[in-house]
Amino acid sequence: MDKLHTLYYFLDLAGTFAFAISGATAAKERGLDIFGICVIAYTVACGGGIIRDLCIGAIPPAGLITWYYLATALVAAGMTIGLYPVVQRINRPVLLFDAAGLSLFAVTGAQKTLSYGHNGEAAVLLGIITAVGGGVIRDILLNRVPVILEKEIYASAALLGAFIVVFGDYLKILPSDWVAVIALIVCFALRMLSLRYHWNLPSFSKSKTDVDN
Amino acid sequence: MDKLHTLYYFLDLAGTFAFAISGATAAKERGLDIFGICVIAYTVACGGGIIRDLCIGAIPPAGLITWYYLATALVAAGMTIGLYPVVQRINRPVLLFDAAGLSLFAVTGAQKTLSYGHNGEAAVLLGIITAVGGGVIRDILLNRVPVILEKEIYASAALLGAFIVVFGDYLKILPSDWVAVIALIVCFALRMLSLRYHWNLPSFSKSKTDVDN
Amino acid sequence: MDKLHTLYYFLDLAGTFAFAISGATAAKERGLDIFGICVIAYTVACGGGIIRDLCIGAIPPAGLITWYYLATALVAAGMTIGLYPVVQRINRPVLLFDAAGLSLFAVTGAQKTLSYGHNGEAAVLLGIITAVGGGVIRDILLNRVPVILEKEIYASAALLGAFIVVFGDYLKILPSDWVAVIALIVCFALRMLSLRYHWNLPSFSKSKTDVDN
Repeated sequence: MDKLHTLYYFLDLAGTFAFAISGATAAKERGLDIFGICVIAYTVACGGGIIRDLCIGAIPPAGLITWYYLATALVAAGMTIGLYPVVQRINRPVLLFDAAGLSLFAVTGAQKTLSYGHNGEAAVLLGIITAVGGGVIRDILLNRVPVILEKEIYASAALLGAFIVVFGDYLKILPSDWVAVIALIVCFALRMLSLRYHWNLPSFSKSKTDVDN
Repeated sequence: MDKLHTLYYFLDLAGTFAFAISGATAAKERGLDIFGICVIAYTVACGGGIIRDLCIGAIPPAGLITWYYLATALVAAGMTIGLYPVVQRINRPVLLFDAAGLSLFAVTGAQKTLSYGHNGEAAVLLGIITAVGGGVIRDILLNRVPVILEKEIYASAALLGAFIVVFGDYLKILPSDWVAVIALIVCFALRMLSLRYHWNLPSFSKSKTDVDN
Repeated sequence: MDKLHTLYYFLDLAGTFAFAISGATAAKERGLDIFGICVIAYTVACGGGIIRDLCIGAIPPAGLITWYYLATALVAAGMTIGLYPVVQRINRPVLLFDAAGLSLFAVTGAQKTLSYGHNGEAAVLLGIITAVGGGVIRDILLNRVPVILEKEIYASAALLGAFIVVFGDYLKILPSDWVAVIALIVCFALRMLSLRYHWNLPSFSKSKTDVDN
């Protein structure tokens, strides 16, 4: 299972990088200064994990004391500032890494919550928060309604991934590393398919509002 | 006092339901998708209590591990999505439940803070946060200035309720259950009266601004 | 070093007051009611420290249990409501106090984090959060992009102050009180100079956007 942990480590960094790129790009497009771009990049990469750690009592939060998260976020911010054409060209791999990060953060968030002895409900909720919390804070700071609340199967994929971890832990039929790999693959596949085919969850009043206006 | 705790339990669920309905309705009107509506419903119902629990060291926060809070929020979200005309018709009872939830959350928030050994200032502040924190997060997520900061006697009623709990705990003349009932009634009555007679706290510059423009 | 702690205490109150004035002024200009003005004043004064205390495990957060922070914030809110012309006239000293508060909060935030046994990265990050967190929450509540992310050398000055504390603690050449004084002076000077000469960090896309429109 050593290879699995190397894979985890790589996915963790790749996901952090993709999250930070998405934050830095949004901050740059909004006209923030260098400091603001770095803050938003770091926030997207680490914000969800910090909220999870506060809620499970992992003090201090890993995102605040792990140098390579901060370093990855600053590299992503630096690339977005200095090499913007490159960042735009790698948009496709970034979406791929972002889906990888989403899956990994949901799965490891749920696992960490369970390993601290909390129940399945907390594990599912905090798995989702780990995966999407940073993006929600990004949208709050940039003064817009969080995109995950409005469209796309994004948080729902994280929900499914975290749920599989908790369900597998409850059944105890498969070893937890296998369960984690299944959860990762299902979450990742659902996210990529929904991107490919533009799947959305239904929403309601907007269309009515459009008619009203 | 067993009846009192049954009453508490009922008020707790009724308040959670009313808070969740207010969140789901606001989210639906804003055009969020199913997931967004569920998130906002849950956030309004549990957000304030989660912040309180983080601040007093009650890890993990009750809102994350208590299945009936989540279930109540999801039922409220489901009703708002599927039975919107019904939800609109029960607007009046919802306002009543909302005032009940406000009172109960302010009182129990202050009580829980005191029971963890913290001082009166923390109890008053966290009583208010328990009662109104979820609504504030709802407004932040929906990208508008929190309504409790702009108008209506809402947080002020929570302040009064939490203050009575702390003051009663300081005087120790009445048993704490009696104090809690008095605080509940005063907070609830103040909120209902201010709704009935459209009481507002004074604000200042807006009128001037209107004149200026 | 007793004089130093008297100085700290004075700077702490002066900074809290200046932060609260900035919050109350922004809330009043936005047309919030009395309660909203008090909430924003208190939030700016104590919000950053509360987040820091949650992250380092100082439960309950000092801002929730220290009466003179709340009292200072309420006095500042009261002055802003009742003596607005006076508050406008002391704009210059308020900017001075604000820079003092920024420096002190950055330095003491980093020191407190180190004293709880956490590492230098956490100390720098939480020093910045202590100094600017309240202002960020103010801007989120008032529904605008946090001003520190868009312009001015403000958080960057806090970063420098917190970094000097951590670096001094690492080198252990000077006593920590001396290091703190140096960090305070550097942070304060950088902030005042950037105010005087309108220094800004570079930003990028806004000018392009202006051209586009």
